[in-house]
Amino acid sequence: MQLHRIEPSEAFAKLFTRTIGLKEEEYVFVQAHFRREYLPRKHFLLRPGQVCNLHSYLNKGCARTYTLDDDGGEHILFFAFEDWWMGDLESIYTGQPSQLNIQAVEDCEFLCIPHTDFLAMESRFPKLKEWHEEKMFRNHYSFVSRLVEVKSLTTEERYLSLINRFPEIFQRVPLQYIASFLDIEPPSLSRLRKRLSGK
Amino acid sequence: MQLHRIEPSEAFAKLFTRTIGLKEEEYVFVQAHFRREYLPRKHFLLRPGQVCNLHSYLNKGCARTYTLDDDGGEHILFFAFEDWWMGDLESIYTGQPSQLNIQAVEDCEFLCIPHTDFLAMESRFPKLKEWHEEKMFRNHYSFVSRLVEVKSLTTEERYLSLINRFPEIFQRVPLQYIASFLDIEPPSLSRLRKRLSGK
Repeated sequence: MQLHRIEPSEAFAKLFTRTIGLKEEEYVFVQAHFRREYLPRKHFLLRPGQVCNLHSYLNKGCARTYTLDDDGGEHILFFAFEDWWMGDLESIYTGQPSQLNIQAVEDCEFLCIPHTDFLAMESRFPKLKEWHEEKMFRNHYSFVSRLVEVKSLTTEERYLSLINRFPEIFQRVPLQYIASFLDIEPPSLSRLRKRLSGK
Repeated sequence: MQLHRIEPSEAFAKLFTRTIGLKEEEYVFVQAHFRREYLPRKHFLLRPGQVCNLHSYLNKGCARTYTLDDDGGEHILFFAFEDWWMGDLESIYTGQPSQLNIQAVEDCEFLCIPHTDFLAMESRFPKLKEWHEEKMFRNHYSFVSRLVEVKSLTTEERYLSLINRFPEIFQRVPLQYIASFLDIEPPSLSRLRKRLSGK
């Protein structure tokens, strides 16, 4: 994996200056701790057994987080698109090896910061720490929602929820991945899609 | 629901003094903001549409968090036992109505603190805030694990994981609730249990 100094990216700059509220010079200082990392399609940002020690901002592309069962079956937990953060927070904060696979679905460009640098930035800029705490809460809510969906919605309802949140997903993610995310077989997803698009 | 001043409870006191590290007089100050709440079996701590504004420590008993689908089917997200905290964090922190049901499975005794008081305690005692942040992380990890389980383990594996974590669950929770948690029908759970106990 190649590492380069990054050039400021618009959405990334906006996140730090507008959303988090850093001053321009503070943002310049923070972004200098990130490195750009290119991950070609099908390559891995994280594999089971590795300790995750980077906070990775998805600057461009699409990736998936999945687990493998004992029979080698893949189970997709979520997809990520531009302006999302990826990584295994449990592994980052506990230092334990991850159980997760994070793989590029399209060619990806990440902006990555080592966890130790991230902690140093947090103590230097309390606004960053506040934002990250709030983000943890929001992450947690989205997990509760995801669990509620997996447990209580029908396949059709979960399909509609997915395309409502990510209208372009079928243009960017292979059908078999979407089927895995919805826990159905690819032919069933094709039929469901055909039926609902005919409505 | 009756509200009373609480008497210090051993596990509760230990949480605040040993785990969180408050001094005795700080603990006395904090616990004076909690109220004891008795919830008889089948009664609700939270119903969909209500805004959750309490952090509730389960001092005694067992409760379940579940959602209802459009057909009125119950889907149990998790059980809670002594020394757990309950509530809908999304509703607490956003002020939006909850979608969750939290119901007593046994007669329960909760120690509850209003969210505004909890925030005041957090700013007065940074150790409490640190503990709560770390707890949020751990909550988040457990949700990731739960999602991984729901997505990728077989029913038998999920059953074994459950009784491994809560060996007494069949003594305390009705079979149909455990079946709902595992997403199987009660007769299938009975057969599974019989088969595995015979091993």
